[in-house]
Amino acid sequence: MNLDDIYRPINEEREKVERSLEAATDVDVPLLRQLLEYALKGRGKRIRPSLALLCGRLHAYDSSLVVPMAAAVELLHTATLVHDDVVDHSPVRRGKPTVSRAWGENRALLLGDYLFAKAGSLAASTGNLRVIELFAETIMTISSGEMRQSVYSLDLREARGYYYTWISAKTASLFSLATESGAVLGQSPEDMVVAMRDYGHNFGMAFQILDDVLDFVGEEAEVGKPVGSDLGEGAVTLPSILYADSHPGDNLIERVIENRDAESVALAVEKIRNSPAIAECLAIASDFSCRACRAIGKLPDNDIRQALLDLATYIIKRRK
Amino acid sequence: MNLDDIYRPINEEREKVERSLEAATDVDVPLLRQLLEYALKGRGKRIRPSLALLCGRLHAYDSSLVVPMAAAVELLHTATLVHDDVVDHSPVRRGKPTVSRAWGENRALLLGDYLFAKAGSLAASTGNLRVIELFAETIMTISSGEMRQSVYSLDLREARGYYYTWISAKTASLFSLATESGAVLGQSPEDMVVAMRDYGHNFGMAFQILDDVLDFVGEEAEVGKPVGSDLGEGAVTLPSILYADSHPGDNLIERVIENRDAESVALAVEKIRNSPAIAECLAIASDFSCRACRAIGKLPDNDIRQALLDLATYIIKRRK
Repeated sequence: MNLDDIYRPINEEREKVERSLEAATDVDVPLLRQLLEYALKGRGKRIRPSLALLCGRLHAYDSSLVVPMAAAVELLHTATLVHDDVVDHSPVRRGKPTVSRAWGENRALLLGDYLFAKAGSLAASTGNLRVIELFAETIMTISSGEMRQSVYSLDLREARGYYYTWISAKTASLFSLATESGAVLGQSPEDMVVAMRDYGHNFGMAFQILDDVLDFVGEEAEVGKPVGSDLGEGAVTLPSILYADSHPGDNLIERVIENRDAESVALAVEKIRNSPAIAECLAIASDFSCRACRAIGKLPDNDIRQALLDLATYIIKRRK
Repeated sequence: MNLDDIYRPINEEREKVERSLEAATDVDVPLLRQLLEYALKGRGKRIRPSLALLCGRLHAYDSSLVVPMAAAVELLHTATLVHDDVVDHSPVRRGKPTVSRAWGENRALLLGDYLFAKAGSLAASTGNLRVIELFAETIMTISSGEMRQSVYSLDLREARGYYYTWISAKTASLFSLATESGAVLGQSPEDMVVAMRDYGHNFGMAFQILDDVLDFVGEEAEVGKPVGSDLGEGAVTLPSILYADSHPGDNLIERVIENRDAESVALAVEKIRNSPAIAECLAIASDFSCRACRAIGKLPDNDIRQALLDLATYIIKRRK
């Protein structure tokens, strides 16, 4: 099961989203145009806009509303990546230099602001106030979540709870924005909207856990950034937490976070990737994926629902 | 004529805006709450929200819509200040350390993002799509204007045109957002909306020119930041441009921008503040203020219009 197969029912709309993203780069400030093209052309997997499109098709359908919202979700996602890379001083993303590294942090900050606003403008163009409110609240959730995380001090007893709160804010909120707004714009009845929001949330949790696993076990060429980047930046994710849980005498993680030198990071990555923590993480990701599928279990059984189910399986099997 | 007198017709609504801003700090992440209080408590002159309130009252009036929009405008203004201070590495604002200096650039970046979104959420709460679109477009104007400015290379022959384009994007756009959205929410007929937008634009141009003059001639204790800060940060504003225009042989400004050492900045400030450039700037600010007043010349002659006229005079006479 590959992404092209899963996306087949929404091929046409996905092309429209690409056109809308291209149109978003059509600005009269040359540097801004260049940065927008650079940030948007990576053509990631476009999972978030595709979720919006799928959820928009599950009931009624009006592509003139869902397409701009899908583009808004991708622009919002890009804005958060650009600002994240400023905050984390990340050198590389998807195998190429970050905007912040290549053009400087100031321009990355301004680019992120522009992308937030352009995304907001597209969300506003749906004319749907519920979706517009949801959009603004999602940015509040993401930025306040990062702010909470910025004062987080490592306490491995409470780390798992913090981790779930963190990834729910930074990742799952954007997925549930995609699915809920798709459902709302597709005029789904309220119980279906709730089901799709739950699907998006659990999908997002599974997605982020797999991202965090790939940071340990992935190949740099596939993942697009060096293995162990998170730990090197001081971010304690689920694999580290589960490793520490099962090695109560060993204070490996604490030491790495304290020193963060390349050698101890590499050693910790090696230990964690060869430990049972990885399999445990995959089981947890799988559990969230199952919850996502169960959330839409009662929705109409058609090719769109099937695509959502396939996508929830795909994202926990992926290698990049 | 002081501000308290001018604001008298909207005292009650101004208090409601303060309550709304206080409510915006009520969040469950302690650090975020602290930063929001710090950034919003400065209690500047609140000119932008007051303009929205006044323009909202010039025709019909529904304070339940105009008050949240006025608060949104102030939050948006605060967001841009917080991000500006990151970009410029400014140590001081309104006499106290900037968020970026006191809590670090990363947290200032996240605070700005949160403020943009909270402002957007309040704008969305008006339920008025035109105002929501205008809000998003204003952020696009501001951030793309700053991006354009970031590649600006000093060419004094073209400097004046660049300067007007720059302050129109970074300052006047926010004032015209305030006045236009007030007019729209106050259900003014279209010709009045256009008049109030023009008023806001010209008001904003005058306001910024006076700010730039005060950076040369103001008292640090009143202005809240060291005299000559702009030049020290490499920003060439109208006083420097007019000085250079009238001293074609002297390349003082070029040298200061190149070196930016404290001594040559201080010398340049001294020369400029004692030159006719200051009076010329004040005349230009006065001209924009007159244009603002003319723009609303045909609106109903009542205490609200009078307050708008008085405010346009006040801002070119102020000393801080």
